[in-house]
Amino acid sequence: MTLFMQALRFSSSRLPFICRRSRTYSTEAGAIERVISAFRSVSGDEGVSVGSAVREQHGRDESAHRCRPPDVVVFPRSVEEVSALAKICHHHQLPIIPFGTGTGLEGGVGALQGGVCFSLRKMDQVLDLHQEDFDVTVEPGVTHRGLNSYLRDTGLWFPVDPGADASLCGMAATSASGTNAVRYGTMRGNVLNLEVVLADGTVLHTAGKGRRPRKTSAGYNLTSLFVGSEGTLGIITKATLRLFGIPESMVSAVCSFPSVQSAVDSTVQILQAGVPIARIEFLDDVMINACNHFNKLSYAVTPTLFLEFHGSSKNMEEQVSITEEITRDNGGSEFAWAEDEETRGRLWKARHDAGYAALALRPGCKAYSTDVCVPISRLPQIIVETKEDLIRNNITGHVGDGNFHCLIVLDPNDPDEVARVHSFTERLVRRALAMDGTCTGEHGIGLGKRALLREEVGPLAISVMQGIKATLDPKNLMNPGKVL
Amino acid sequence: MTLFMQALRFSSSRLPFICRRSRTYSTEAGAIERVISAFRSVSGDEGVSVGSAVREQHGRDESAHRCRPPDVVVFPRSVEEVSALAKICHHHQLPIIPFGTGTGLEGGVGALQGGVCFSLRKMDQVLDLHQEDFDVTVEPGVTHRGLNSYLRDTGLWFPVDPGADASLCGMAATSASGTNAVRYGTMRGNVLNLEVVLADGTVLHTAGKGRRPRKTSAGYNLTSLFVGSEGTLGIITKATLRLFGIPESMVSAVCSFPSVQSAVDSTVQILQAGVPIARIEFLDDVMINACNHFNKLSYAVTPTLFLEFHGSSKNMEEQVSITEEITRDNGGSEFAWAEDEETRGRLWKARHDAGYAALALRPGCKAYSTDVCVPISRLPQIIVETKEDLIRNNITGHVGDGNFHCLIVLDPNDPDEVARVHSFTERLVRRALAMDGTCTGEHGIGLGKRALLREEVGPLAISVMQGIKATLDPKNLMNPGKVL
Repeated sequence: MTLFMQALRFSSSRLPFICRRSRTYSTEAGAIERVISAFRSVSGDEGVSVGSAVREQHGRDESAHRCRPPDVVVFPRSVEEVSALAKICHHHQLPIIPFGTGTGLEGGVGALQGGVCFSLRKMDQVLDLHQEDFDVTVEPGVTHRGLNSYLRDTGLWFPVDPGADASLCGMAATSASGTNAVRYGTMRGNVLNLEVVLADGTVLHTAGKGRRPRKTSAGYNLTSLFVGSEGTLGIITKATLRLFGIPESMVSAVCSFPSVQSAVDSTVQILQAGVPIARIEFLDDVMINACNHFNKLSYAVTPTLFLEFHGSSKNMEEQVSITEEITRDNGGSEFAWAEDEETRGRLWKARHDAGYAALALRPGCKAYSTDVCVPISRLPQIIVETKEDLIRNNITGHVGDGNFHCLIVLDPNDPDEVARVHSFTERLVRRALAMDGTCTGEHGIGLGKRALLREEVGPLAISVMQGIKATLDPKNLMNPGKVL
Repeated sequence: MTLFMQALRFSSSRLPFICRRSRTYSTEAGAIERVISAFRSVSGDEGVSVGSAVREQHGRDESAHRCRPPDVVVFPRSVEEVSALAKICHHHQLPIIPFGTGTGLEGGVGALQGGVCFSLRKMDQVLDLHQEDFDVTVEPGVTHRGLNSYLRDTGLWFPVDPGADASLCGMAATSASGTNAVRYGTMRGNVLNLEVVLADGTVLHTAGKGRRPRKTSAGYNLTSLFVGSEGTLGIITKATLRLFGIPESMVSAVCSFPSVQSAVDSTVQILQAGVPIARIEFLDDVMINACNHFNKLSYAVTPTLFLEFHGSSKNMEEQVSITEEITRDNGGSEFAWAEDEETRGRLWKARHDAGYAALALRPGCKAYSTDVCVPISRLPQIIVETKEDLIRNNITGHVGDGNFHCLIVLDPNDPDEVARVHSFTERLVRRALAMDGTCTGEHGIGLGKRALLREEVGPLAISVMQGIKATLDPKNLMNPGKVL
C-alpha cells in the first residue's frame, strides 16, 4: 500500500473515470445548523467546525475520489463524547463519517450525502500497554508510527505498516496490511478487541470490555466483523492489538532478475520452501528506473526483488542461504546487502518513494493504484500477463502474499488515456477473479470497487452483508454509500 | 481439548448440574412425519433415518449434556441435497441441527426443540488440493486425521488438532484449537473460505465462490463470522483451509518442576523470549500421577511441562537452548527427550490419555472440563489460585496460549459434590473474567455457557449477535437454543 498512498498525495483533483458519484443530499436542509449548538454543548466550540477549509480537508483521502465534504466536522475527546455526538446524529438522522488520518485509498471518507465527519485525532492516547502479554490498547488518534515510537524502549513493536502513517483504528477499519504482512499478517490477525460506538450512540466492546485473551470461542466473532467494515458499522474508538518482539536482527537485500517470470518464480519458491521471510517486494524495470532517477541510485534496470529477513543471527543465516540458492537458480544477481539500519532505511525509502518516482517521470499526471491479490502460484502468470497488458506502466507489490499493485500514471485530461486505464483495471480484476483471487488485498472497497465486490462475492453474500448492515445501522447513517 | 474429549467419552449419563434443559417441543406434532417422504425423495431411503438408535446417537456429543434426540436424521451426499433438505425444513419450520463427528464438548448437537439432524459424514471428499498455494478444500465429513493422512506424501499438513478426530468443518463451526495452537494458531486464523447452506436453503460462499487469496479487504469478513457460530447461522458444507509445510524436524521433551508457579512462570518466560515453540502443555501432580498409573510410566509426580519444538535442525538448537536456560533458572529438571517418532508418539499418548487416566482413579465417576483462557502473564496467578481452590483435582492445558483445563472427576450421584463442582466452575470463570480472559478458549458456548457468555461480552454484544442471528435465520431454525 505504501507506494500508492504516497504517490496519491500528488493527486489533488478528481479522476473522471472513478468519480461519478452523485451529490444528492439526503439530509434535510438546515438539519445540521439546528444541531450545531448541541454538538458544541458536547465538545465545546473548538470541538466543532463548519469552516470550509476544515470541511474540505476532511472530505477527501489520498485517493483520486473527490466527493462533497461533510457539512460539519466534530473533534471528540473521549468515547463518551463520540457516543453523545452520535446520539444527536441518530436523533436527527444525520450521516456519520469517521475520519482517522485521511490516508485511505478508496474514498472511504467522502461525505456522499453530507453529514457529520467525526475526526478522531484528539483521542490520541496509548492505553493499557501489557508488555508481558504482548498487547496494547490505543485510541483512534494513535498512528502506527506513533505507537512504535511509544514502544521504543520496550523491545516490542507493531509491525503492520501500510506505508502512510495511518491511524491504527483506521487501519483496523480498512483491514490494512503492508510490506510486513508476509511474516506478521494483516490487521485481521492482529486485533484482539475493539471498542465501537454504534450508529445509535451505544458503546460496543466486540470481545467484551477489556478482554484480551490470545484465543477465544466465545460467541460470534464481532471483532473480525468490524475489522474491514470501513466505518459502515460503527466508529472504532479503541483497538486492542497484538504486539511482537523486535527481532534480534534484520537485514535487507536487493536482487535483480533477467525477467519478470524469474523474479516472481523465485518469490513463489521462497514461500514454498517455508522461509519465514519478513518482506518480499517486487519492482519491475519501469519502477526501478524511476527509483534510480528519483533517488540517485544505480540498480540494474530489470525486474527486482527487495527482501528483508528478521530473526536471530543464527536462523537468519539459514533463511538467507535457502533464499540465495533459489534466486541463483532462477538467474538472479548476487544480493546487494543492507545490514545496518541506515542502509536499510535508504533501501526501503527508495521502495517507498517509488510512487513519487513514477509520478516524477510524467509531471502534471495523476496516479491510480490497483491492489488485486491472488494465490501465490498464480502470481507469475498474472504479473506476466499484466505486464504485457500495461507495458509502459509500473508494477510493484508485496508479492509474498499474492498482492501486487499497478501504479498507473495518467493524464486525467486525456479522455482516451482515462478510458484505456479504466478498461485495463477491469481486465486486471477479472483476471485476478478468474485465478481465485480478490479485487482488493488491502485497500478496501470504499467507493470505487462496490461493483467489483458484488462480482467477487456474489449477490447472496452482498445481501448477507446488507442484512448485517441493516441490523447494526437500520437508518443507514454510518458512512453511507461505502462498501455496499 | 484433547484430554477432555477423550475423558468425556466415559460420561454416558447426564450430569444434573449442567443438564437442566427443558424438553419443550416447538415443532408441530406430526410435521416431521409429513416431510419424511420429501426428505426421501431428496436423499433416498438410506439417506433418512427415524430409527431410535440412530437418533439417539445423533442427539449427543462427548459432553455431559443430554438433551432429547432429533426426530429424524438425514444423510445428504452433496451440497445440493443439503440445500434441498434445508428448503423442506424451512418451509415446514423444522429446526436443523448440523452434525459432524459428535465430538463437541458443549452439547452443540442436542435437539432442544426436536427437528432434523443433518449428519454430514457421507460428504467426505478432499477437494481442490493446491499444494503450491498451501491450501485445500474439504467436505464436512473429512476429519483432521483423515486430511493429514490424505496429505501424507505432499510434505504438507494441517496442524490444528483438538485431540478427538473431529471433522474440519465441525472444528470451523466451534472455532476449535488444540495443542498446536501456540505455533500454528486456531481455526479462526486458518480458514480461508466457507461454503454454507443458510436456513432457507440458499448456498453462501463467505469469501466468494472458489476464492482463496492469502489476504483480502473485500467487504465484511463473513468467513470469520461463521467460524465459531456453532451451527446457529448455517450448515458448513465446505471449508477452504491453510496448510503448512511439515517441519524438517520435531522433538519433544518433558520437564519437571518443584512447584506450579515455577512451571507456569517458565511458560510465560519462554513465550516472552519469542521462542517459536510448537506446543507447551502443563500437567499438574495429580494428572502426572494418573498418567504414570495408566501408562506404566515413571515421571516425577510434580508439576510438569510437555514441550514440542518444530523447525530445521539448526534453529531447533537455538529454541531448545533458550528454553533449557529458562526452565533451569526456574528450578526445572533436565529435559527427558523424545526425538524419534515412536517415543514422541508415546509421550503425547500419555498426555492425551491423561483424561482416561484421571477417570481410572475414580471408577464410576464422570468428567467435566473447563477451558478458560487468560492473558499469559495472568496464568501463574490463576493456575496457582485454581489449584488451591481444587486441590484434589486435575489441571492441565495448552498454557502457551493462556488456555488451561480443569478436568473434574465427580460422582454425579453425589449432590454435594455436584454442587461443589458447579460453584467451583463459576468461581473459576469469574476469576478468568476478572483477569481480562474468556470463559472458553476453544470448546465454545453450546448449551452450558450461555449465561457466562452474556457476563463476558455484555448485553449489547449479545443483542448484536442476536440481531445477526435474526438476519440470517429469522425463523430461528438453525440449531436453536445454542450460543445465544
